[in-house]
Amino acid sequence: MTKRIKKIGVLTGGGDCAGLNAVIRAVTKSAINQHGLEVFGIEDGFEGLLHNRMHPLGMEDVSNILTHGGTILGTNNKCNPARYHVEVDGQMQIQDLSEQVMGHIKSRSLDALIVIGGDGTMAVASNFARRGVNCIGVPKTIDNDLESCDVTFGFPTAYYVATEALDRIHTTAASHHRAMLVEVMGRNAGWIALYAGVASGADIILIPEIPFSIDKVCEKVTDRSRHGKRFSILCVAEGARPIDGEQVVARYDHTSADPVRLGGISRIVADQIEKMTGIETRTTILGHIQRGGSPIPQDRLLATAFGHAAITTLMAGKENRMVVMQGRNVTDISLYDVVDKQRLVPMDHPYIQAVRDMSISFGD
Amino acid sequence: MTKRIKKIGVLTGGGDCAGLNAVIRAVTKSAINQHGLEVFGIEDGFEGLLHNRMHPLGMEDVSNILTHGGTILGTNNKCNPARYHVEVDGQMQIQDLSEQVMGHIKSRSLDALIVIGGDGTMAVASNFARRGVNCIGVPKTIDNDLESCDVTFGFPTAYYVATEALDRIHTTAASHHRAMLVEVMGRNAGWIALYAGVASGADIILIPEIPFSIDKVCEKVTDRSRHGKRFSILCVAEGARPIDGEQVVARYDHTSADPVRLGGISRIVADQIEKMTGIETRTTILGHIQRGGSPIPQDRLLATAFGHAAITTLMAGKENRMVVMQGRNVTDISLYDVVDKQRLVPMDHPYIQAVRDMSISFGD
Amino acid sequence: MTKRIKKIGVLTGGGDCAGLNAVIRAVTKSAINQHGLEVFGIEDGFEGLLHNRMHPLGMEDVSNILTHGGTILGTNNKCNPARYHVEVDGQMQIQDLSEQVMGHIKSRSLDALIVIGGDGTMAVASNFARRGVNCIGVPKTIDNDLESCDVTFGFPTAYYVATEALDRIHTTAASHHRAMLVEVMGRNAGWIALYAGVASGADIILIPEIPFSIDKVCEKVTDRSRHGKRFSILCVAEGARPIDGEQVVARYDHTSADPVRLGGISRIVADQIEKMTGIETRTTILGHIQRGGSPIPQDRLLATAFGHAAITTLMAGKENRMVVMQGRNVTDISLYDVVDKQRLVPMDHPYIQAVRDMSISFGD
Amino acid sequence: MTKRIKKIGVLTGGGDCAGLNAVIRAVTKSAINQHGLEVFGIEDGFEGLLHNRMHPLGMEDVSNILTHGGTILGTNNKCNPARYHVEVDGQMQIQDLSEQVMGHIKSRSLDALIVIGGDGTMAVASNFARRGVNCIGVPKTIDNDLESCDVTFGFPTAYYVATEALDRIHTTAASHHRAMLVEVMGRNAGWIALYAGVASGADIILIPEIPFSIDKVCEKVTDRSRHGKRFSILCVAEGARPIDGEQVVARYDHTSADPVRLGGISRIVADQIEKMTGIETRTTILGHIQRGGSPIPQDRLLATAFGHAAITTLMAGKENRMVVMQGRNVTDISLYDVVDKQRLVPMDHPYIQAVRDMSISFGD
Repeated sequence: MTKRIKKIGVLTGGGDCAGLNAVIRAVTKSAINQHGLEVFGIEDGFEGLLHNRMHPLGMEDVSNILTHGGTILGTNNKCNPARYHVEVDGQMQIQDLSEQVMGHIKSRSLDALIVIGGDGTMAVASNFARRGVNCIGVPKTIDNDLESCDVTFGFPTAYYVATEALDRIHTTAASHHRAMLVEVMGRNAGWIALYAGVASGADIILIPEIPFSIDKVCEKVTDRSRHGKRFSILCVAEGARPIDGEQVVARYDHTSADPVRLGGISRIVADQIEKMTGIETRTTILGHIQRGGSPIPQDRLLATAFGHAAITTLMAGKENRMVVMQGRNVTDISLYDVVDKQRLVPMDHPYIQAVRDMSISFGD
Repeated sequence: MTKRIKKIGVLTGGGDCAGLNAVIRAVTKSAINQHGLEVFGIEDGFEGLLHNRMHPLGMEDVSNILTHGGTILGTNNKCNPARYHVEVDGQMQIQDLSEQVMGHIKSRSLDALIVIGGDGTMAVASNFARRGVNCIGVPKTIDNDLESCDVTFGFPTAYYVATEALDRIHTTAASHHRAMLVEVMGRNAGWIALYAGVASGADIILIPEIPFSIDKVCEKVTDRSRHGKRFSILCVAEGARPIDGEQVVARYDHTSADPVRLGGISRIVADQIEKMTGIETRTTILGHIQRGGSPIPQDRLLATAFGHAAITTLMAGKENRMVVMQGRNVTDISLYDVVDKQRLVPMDHPYIQAVRDMSISFGD
Repeated sequence: MTKRIKKIGVLTGGGDCAGLNAVIRAVTKSAINQHGLEVFGIEDGFEGLLHNRMHPLGMEDVSNILTHGGTILGTNNKCNPARYHVEVDGQMQIQDLSEQVMGHIKSRSLDALIVIGGDGTMAVASNFARRGVNCIGVPKTIDNDLESCDVTFGFPTAYYVATEALDRIHTTAASHHRAMLVEVMGRNAGWIALYAGVASGADIILIPEIPFSIDKVCEKVTDRSRHGKRFSILCVAEGARPIDGEQVVARYDHTSADPVRLGGISRIVADQIEKMTGIETRTTILGHIQRGGSPIPQDRLLATAFGHAAITTLMAGKENRMVVMQGRNVTDISLYDVVDKQRLVPMDHPYIQAVRDMSISFGD
Repeated sequence: MTKRIKKIGVLTGGGDCAGLNAVIRAVTKSAINQHGLEVFGIEDGFEGLLHNRMHPLGMEDVSNILTHGGTILGTNNKCNPARYHVEVDGQMQIQDLSEQVMGHIKSRSLDALIVIGGDGTMAVASNFARRGVNCIGVPKTIDNDLESCDVTFGFPTAYYVATEALDRIHTTAASHHRAMLVEVMGRNAGWIALYAGVASGADIILIPEIPFSIDKVCEKVTDRSRHGKRFSILCVAEGARPIDGEQVVARYDHTSADPVRLGGISRIVADQIEKMTGIETRTTILGHIQRGGSPIPQDRLLATAFGHAAITTLMAGKENRMVVMQGRNVTDISLYDVVDKQRLVPMDHPYIQAVRDMSISFGD
């Protein structure tokens, strides 16, 4: 028999993402207003749970945070209490402090946890779910690459910001005779690059799902130039990579095992383009501006729906589920099923075909 | 047997809407690049077809229009060649000039028409479809209320603009002790009001689907005031209406048969609130700023997908279809099925329940 | 001898305006960090001072408010303690409660007041300045019409918002054959209309400083139409008015002594244009969205400079001054000199001549 | 005696900058409408003048470009006809092709040139001015560092974009325990960094005018951390540099003579902070998004005023002048006086003192 829920904790884990506060607000408002629950805000993800840092969240605390970026609870993208790094006698040791966490959950009388985070955070939560703590997950990834979930909050703001940046770059490229590359997030999946690329009218879009040939990329740039187009815009996912066997030789690759740290795949591609086509080439790496800041309206809606669904799921007596969006419906899957399996852009996605038919190149 | 398509015309009809140019661009680029078609841009909707005003559209003509609001073809929201108003001997007569249109289509050798517009435009197109012109429709409504279509382009920009306005109003309301109403579009369906209302954290949302009681509205405002909330934000669809039997007496209603023309339902509600609660109340009617301007990235994507799908549908040999979006897929329905049947917000929509559980009022 | 300043109060009066929080933050940070003062935040303008509602403001309280619209202190645009409306035996009486305010200032040991507000607020402050309270004023008006001050915070955000709205309207107008009017704030001075009009490329700009002739306005609209321009954009200050002797007959003027309340001068002008030119005409009244919301960067800078200058002026031993901006310098004038004298747009302003030379019409 | 002006050419040189199209529009509209001039648009700066690539500009050509980024004329930031690189017998030679340019100016009957560009472009123009071509300059620099000119167009948009980016970074930094650096443009002058830094509430602002000590920077970061501030935001001009004698050791400096190419001063500072404080540190280099895109309203106004003033100056019979803005007035200086002398941020600038008093650090 499910015991009656009276008191819950909510935490945010992993990297920042537009819409976190909107989730916290929806969770808190739904819990208090509809179900009369007591809500505790746990600080800095599982780090706060480990050190018993939490405080009551009332309606007033979540008032006016809907439009704010970041998370009022703070976050932490490293802490796993089951494998906690502690210094003992001057040496780092890894200890399992799960029981310490269980003790705080018990002493605080938390009947359930709302865990907002990505794969890593859900894996940490699973550990406590197995120990009997009802954990309801809310998925968080700006990359939009969560299996079983059609769209995640944070992604709309991320590609909105990327599109705005590409719009600005566009006019500069058009005024000079240049190839300009904009590198966006997406280590394994190319959602942001595909959406921002199509939305901004990019000429070449490089995504991890479609390995590119540097020759084909240069051919497209040269071809445009020959047809009187004074410029080319490339939207490049950070995880874009060349086809097997092809060497994209980085100018800097002799100085580091990790050329990406020195500026990303886009710099390497840019160097190649400039060398092979003789056309002036410039690169911009957008980085963190895709993560933070006020969520666009679509993200506020998604985040509100997710947060509300977490409470609805919990109060329906379900245990250890993660809420997901499928089509236009919010539903839920087992928390244990959230493995490190990524939802890549499928090759039959409508935008993939549109891109090909409209003569935008994937460099393949 | 379907005859081979070589030359098509494209036109935009009805009111302005963010994303029209993106559709025209996708239609033109897909048609030329993928299928080697010739494309003609018809000016000002069916008016241009009637008067044979059209011009070739090449890749260059649609370059750089993706981000621009409006339509490079011009539009017209009145012309129906089958019932055309002409002046004869100083008197207005209604004439059927359909054959004149058919003549131009024939003389220009147009094998098909891509018709971008709303219900009215599709009805006009049906007339020519019945006469043997293959018409492929692309639905256009910022109201998002098209039956059989989950989301229409223009709607995301409309509720984005409305949300931005509500955000600005919010801080003013919070600094004074006021109720502030923002009236948004939506004569029959409350999509914009619901989405913008939830996204901006409105306290009361009035939509046509849920008739409101002015007493309940005032009660909510008073209740918030009693609990120390210094203000209330109301997001009101232009088509919101009171419950049967309830009289929302307009201060101005004795001067006009149409109080809405004098300022809309929001002014009437505002007057009532001020009178009944004694709380200072202000109204803003957003109007046309919801229609125009640069489309947000989501609309550019939707419009591109719709435009591309129109050509794919046409070249697959289909006739007299309208492309629609269902779930994440683009598909098509019969042009003749597009009747004046509106897709209202369903009462089991996730946001409806979220609103109720989070103590936002529909005034019911 | 000036007594040493140890404790100050800060209040905001009058209507909302982008940048108020940025002023409060700069005042508080400068006062505490540089001069070691104690700062009290007075709630809801002079209303809070009258009822002794105030609370300490620390560095933490003003953290993170720079970008937020509105005022964390609340405001009030009616309270004048010297002429306070009170109910006595069921009748409204006007009483002078100045001494009650003086009592609170004394009991709280406030050595000075930082008063952020417009003409009205400064007039109220003068009363207490005369009674010996050192009042340092910070001018606030989105209308930019303060004599002796080249630019006021709030104005840049106001014309930014107005320009954005005009940009959106522009594409709708261009897609139809229409005249579209946008009414912006400015009851006596046309700064917002002039700036937003020029920045958005409006065709006709109506400001209070240049009375318009409805014939000239219609002539310009017709002239554009004749030269193939499918539309006209009019940017209209709420205080625009016709030349002497000319009757701009409002369709609604028989129902009210105050046609402006029924929709503003822009509606009246729109009716005339439609009637006289036969061209479809639409109106949007922007209203409160010009006041609120996050200040644009320029306003955050101006507001920070003003707030900092208020403390610098105070700590330099000055008394009863208002800080103003002249050229690029912040300086100060006597608080008593701030009379109800408005800085109108001068006819030799560079934009006035640019407008005329570029064939934009003032309707004169 | 000045000969009557009938026909002018206009060109844009140097890097892209928000507002170029607005200048071209104001030049063309004023020239045609007010003075009946013929206007020729010269393509790609002096490159187009050298190769006689130019075309007539009418009212229609500059319609609707006010809000667009970039330049419809194209630009070129390398071409100097007096020192032109040509290939002769497989070898690069530098030739003086000034006479070829003079020939085209004569054959086209251009009575004057409106030259929109930076220092470099003005230097090239001077060469032709000395040969008898009346050149009226319009200054262009997003860096705002032109001697004799209080504010230049492009700068407001640049610091607006930088502030928006900093706003987004802010929420991410606040949610994690991090120092985050944003590198903005400004090789010699720190205007963008100062304005964007103050407008976004940065904690540390590094500008070329105030050499920083890495110890002081780290001290500030640590100090904030000790006082419970979970994060620090650094706004860094690309030209910021350490105090004499201090070594800011780059991790990468052994691999390149030019560490800036590898990621800029901000990366080097970030590495130092992380190493010296142990606090996680991240860097974002904004790059080209500061240059391009739609100009904010303030830039459209400035650009319009500059363009209009160029024609007014020309038609007043002046020769070889550059228009500048001083205070609120547009005036002009000798084209020959525009030397490579930069307007640095003066140490008595109001924002410098405000920063210091509000406990924001310059790292000194």
